[in-house]
Amino acid sequence: MTTKPTRVALIQMSCEPDPEVNLAKAAARCQEAAFAGATIICLPELFRAQYFCQREDHALFALTESIPGPSTAALAAIAREHNVVIIASLFERRAPGLYHNTAVTLDPASSAPDNIAGIYRKMHIPDDPLYYEKFYFTPGDLGFRALATSAGRVGTLVCWDQWYPEAARETALRGAETLFYPTAIGWHPAEKAEFGEAQYDAWQTIQRAHAIANGVFVCAVNRVGHELGDVLISGQLNRVPPTANEVLGMTGDFTAGPNPGLEFWGGSFIADPFGRILAQASHDHEEILTADLDPKLVETTRQHWPFLRDRRIDGYTGLTSRFID
Amino acid sequence: MTTKPTRVALIQMSCEPDPEVNLAKAAARCQEAAFAGATIICLPELFRAQYFCQREDHALFALTESIPGPSTAALAAIAREHNVVIIASLFERRAPGLYHNTAVTLDPASSAPDNIAGIYRKMHIPDDPLYYEKFYFTPGDLGFRALATSAGRVGTLVCWDQWYPEAARETALRGAETLFYPTAIGWHPAEKAEFGEAQYDAWQTIQRAHAIANGVFVCAVNRVGHELGDVLISGQLNRVPPTANEVLGMTGDFTAGPNPGLEFWGGSFIADPFGRILAQASHDHEEILTADLDPKLVETTRQHWPFLRDRRIDGYTGLTSRFID
Repeated sequence: MTTKPTRVALIQMSCEPDPEVNLAKAAARCQEAAFAGATIICLPELFRAQYFCQREDHALFALTESIPGPSTAALAAIAREHNVVIIASLFERRAPGLYHNTAVTLDPASSAPDNIAGIYRKMHIPDDPLYYEKFYFTPGDLGFRALATSAGRVGTLVCWDQWYPEAARETALRGAETLFYPTAIGWHPAEKAEFGEAQYDAWQTIQRAHAIANGVFVCAVNRVGHELGDVLISGQLNRVPPTANEVLGMTGDFTAGPNPGLEFWGGSFIADPFGRILAQASHDHEEILTADLDPKLVETTRQHWPFLRDRRIDGYTGLTSRFID
Repeated sequence: MTTKPTRVALIQMSCEPDPEVNLAKAAARCQEAAFAGATIICLPELFRAQYFCQREDHALFALTESIPGPSTAALAAIAREHNVVIIASLFERRAPGLYHNTAVTLDPASSAPDNIAGIYRKMHIPDDPLYYEKFYFTPGDLGFRALATSAGRVGTLVCWDQWYPEAARETALRGAETLFYPTAIGWHPAEKAEFGEAQYDAWQTIQRAHAIANGVFVCAVNRVGHELGDVLISGQLNRVPPTANEVLGMTGDFTAGPNPGLEFWGGSFIADPFGRILAQASHDHEEILTADLDPKLVETTRQHWPFLRDRRIDGYTGLTSRFID
């Protein structure tokens, strides 16, 4: 654990159909961030591919990889070369038929294969129109974790986890002082005009609240750009059928017709332990978002807003219930 | 449980030294709100007195009252007359030497004494410079509660509770669809210029996040005005010694000298189940803040943002720990 300021870099990027192109882009951006002094870098959720969960297709399990595997090998080389911690979100093949949405923390100080200091398997799995994640990802079975890295005590959570105060609290109680949320969230084009602003605002608000409730830094990194979910597999383009909505029997918010895709809203940000925005990315550009985090601010904030002191742990037994009828 | 829209009224008020004056003011404002069509009204925290917790003085236990008692009697008469639910925050005398910060829900449909449909005893008790609540209030022992009233399924929480996602979640899991937070929070005058905006923003942000996380309406009602904590007891003015900070041995943020008091920041608000602000009060005026809440919006929002569906109740066992070392 370090007490010197940490320079975080979040790689807000767009994703191409070819996974190799995305890995090369991510690697190049990590190098760029390291040259700019970053001590810890976080990539967006599942950056190796366009967001394929827009449909359910068994062929897409070809995107999975082992951990350690080719992505951790490529990124660990950069982590070692620049002495920087890298957090990568990968589609993990754990066993035949068992796949996870996994965040891997690579730390040059770790002697494990590919410098893997820790992994976290996404606990909360969404399932909504065009976000069919329950088809692909087995819910995590490692629980919530914190990790002492060369760049501070961190916790990794993934996307849908960000809507759960329980996830942030569990991770903070394990000692994490900075929470990272690799993310892939965007607007349904048909909804954006009416609901887009409120959706982004809710997304940022609840994560700022995790910072406030726990006195921790929060770093959310999202992809950007409009995607139809095109993925190159063995030289073949796999894409959503043009009448996907019709095929999938979707009704209500969505009209049958050409696949509208998703407009990923970027808007990556870094919040301090009182929820103040330290750095804010755009909604429509690739960028590397950086901020210097002073770990002393965690303790100072918690002394002035001593929420951890006053938790009524005797009164929270209902939290492990689905509902209290 | 009703399915018709609920009209909430929040009584943002200032408090005088004389408790009887405050009770009369509160009663008059409740009547005014009822005439304007309110079906449920919430008063600010401990509205019967100026915020006396600015010092520790045994004489101030004279402010306590039983429940049922004089305040519930006065307010229940109004509740019955106008067929309206009233939520009142009182300094409860439960037994000699045992006092609570208690929210009482008065519902004309209840046949209990003073139409008391339910009480909630503040679970999280703060203790900070000028907020010496641990001296006065025994932490609640009733846990978190929801209540089916004539004006919908509600949960009452109190002030410091608002910083705890656990409290909101527990209350929502018990069926509350609207959370009420009677509050007394303000700025230390010496801090306001530097931190005031961030403090109010954090306070509102974390409560909007409770709305989002749980798909519930959130109604926060605060007092307004600068107070030295003057309280009239048996015709005698009880006030903070002019050099209170010195007497209390306070250092750091506070300079010894005349008691600076607290500037209560008002800013009461009503948020919908996606955290959008439906009504927003000023920082410096008394006002009655109203909004019409459609209970159908709770279910619609939860269908579109199905956070309750995906909670990992098997993974939250750490939440009942103080810290996970």
